[in-house]
Amino acid sequence: MQALRFENGDLRLRDVPAPNAETSKEAIVRVLKSGICNTDLEIARGYAEFQGTIGHEFVGIAECAADAPHLIGKRVVGEVNVGCGECDFCKSDDSRHCPRRTVLGIKERDGAHAEFLTLPVRNLFEVPDRISNDEAVFVEPLAAAFGINEQVEIFPETRVAIVGDGKLGNLCAQSLALKSENVFLIGKHAEKLALLSQSNVETILLENAEKLSKTFDVAVEASGAASGFATALDLLKPRGKLVLKSTFQGTTNLEMWRVVVDEISIVGSRCGRFAPAIDLLANKKVAVENLIDEEFPLRDAVRAMRRAEARGVMKVLLTNMN
Amino acid sequence: MQALRFENGDLRLRDVPAPNAETSKEAIVRVLKSGICNTDLEIARGYAEFQGTIGHEFVGIAECAADAPHLIGKRVVGEVNVGCGECDFCKSDDSRHCPRRTVLGIKERDGAHAEFLTLPVRNLFEVPDRISNDEAVFVEPLAAAFGINEQVEIFPETRVAIVGDGKLGNLCAQSLALKSENVFLIGKHAEKLALLSQSNVETILLENAEKLSKTFDVAVEASGAASGFATALDLLKPRGKLVLKSTFQGTTNLEMWRVVVDEISIVGSRCGRFAPAIDLLANKKVAVENLIDEEFPLRDAVRAMRRAEARGVMKVLLTNMN
Repeated sequence: MQALRFENGDLRLRDVPAPNAETSKEAIVRVLKSGICNTDLEIARGYAEFQGTIGHEFVGIAECAADAPHLIGKRVVGEVNVGCGECDFCKSDDSRHCPRRTVLGIKERDGAHAEFLTLPVRNLFEVPDRISNDEAVFVEPLAAAFGINEQVEIFPETRVAIVGDGKLGNLCAQSLALKSENVFLIGKHAEKLALLSQSNVETILLENAEKLSKTFDVAVEASGAASGFATALDLLKPRGKLVLKSTFQGTTNLEMWRVVVDEISIVGSRCGRFAPAIDLLANKKVAVENLIDEEFPLRDAVRAMRRAEARGVMKVLLTNMN
Repeated sequence: MQALRFENGDLRLRDVPAPNAETSKEAIVRVLKSGICNTDLEIARGYAEFQGTIGHEFVGIAECAADAPHLIGKRVVGEVNVGCGECDFCKSDDSRHCPRRTVLGIKERDGAHAEFLTLPVRNLFEVPDRISNDEAVFVEPLAAAFGINEQVEIFPETRVAIVGDGKLGNLCAQSLALKSENVFLIGKHAEKLALLSQSNVETILLENAEKLSKTFDVAVEASGAASGFATALDLLKPRGKLVLKSTFQGTTNLEMWRVVVDEISIVGSRCGRFAPAIDLLANKKVAVENLIDEEFPLRDAVRAMRRAEARGVMKVLLTNMN
């Protein structure tokens, strides 16, 4: 089968053996579509020290699932963390933090930019008919965005600022606007901010954000830049909460004294649960299709990665449907 | 009166007018003893842009308190933040975050390394007889240490690591050991760690701390160094809480990606409430007198500051008692 592989510093579409239905202990999924995430771009720059097939956002058809015949032929999405099943985290149903976990397309497990992938049956979620394939690819990033609610309590009156108008910031803004009536998205790109014109999110160009200094209860850093962290910190009231959603690689120069003096809480937030994200999409609570910039066939995956890297591009999809 | 002043980059004992009992709208306190804090040393390096009399840890006698005659002649300690009394923070009884606050010896308000100081009556707390003058000087830093409990829930089984074996780390360790049976103090100095040999705090030399990596629920950074932040982060389990107690000046290089991947919470923590700290000292729950290195008369305040700056020195006191 074809797979987008990162091996020894080299990103390339390769022919590799497909998972074997006779011997696989996991479900085999035929990938219909997969989404290119910023993490994929970082892996292709060598940051995560991952070797193998990249990609972790997907929708597919379960073709083989020994323990779960009801799934065969169904459309599925999949949680990306596969825990050991035995540690305290796994036993409390949170394999996202299992120290021995593998992660689809990110850590010791081949990923989704391929014709087929495998995952344990327990990681798979059936996709309701009301959700299109294009929408289903967003379950994973939407779960990550909506997961903020697991870590920070948001009330209707909570003033929330999201810094960064990319895919992640957009999904965070839509997710949090379901809880709060005071959500502001702050970004540098008028055309990206305009994607939220139909929502109840207020959008502000970064250059106009200074007047909002120290007025927010919660600020979400979703820009992936250290300057975004500084902006988020500046927007917070004393005792405010800063949610770190995006990773900066390496070390970052930060004004941590402000965190102490204003007694700010910083909350790191990575993955979220799939079930609520599927509900949101099924009930059309969140709009994701306008985030798609372009779709490429899997055979053009390397070109698609280059496209995803270009400035101003939102979501790029790979398709494997004939 | 004599006062230790920092003015135009110059630290010097100066003769200044004492507060005037006829015109002062605040209580006048004759200072008996004051403690030199690391913040004083930082101010004397010019970091806080403060001009005036430094010092904020003290015990004294209330000599003049128009609205509170019952306080006259009593030993008192004082909360250092003086709020505007009108903003939302002040109205919710938390002037520590009032944006217009002044702070004793730190922000737009003359401090405690002097013969007299003034504070609003509402900032003063009477000191019970069971607390010595030496102990009373520690109410402010102990309140700051014990204040961690206001921000992070600590249970008997919570595994807590404190990084930094100076005054602040020692007080944090003792404070948190009142809540948890699993408190570890990690530091570089065997002789400082030994100060806790009578307590139920387990002490570990930094060089031996590596084996404790990823085993703590809560880690407190009390070293004041960026390396202490990295150590604290390393000690935490996924979803652990990092309490930032000490300020690093300027920007700090931090590996924030670990905060996101392991979904760490960081909690900035600055000041605490005085009442619980007074209770702890009155009931001998915390030992502070062994933290005192040396005492100087106020007239030798500049020399005392140099002493406080020397490596390995814990608390230095100034005394104004004849």
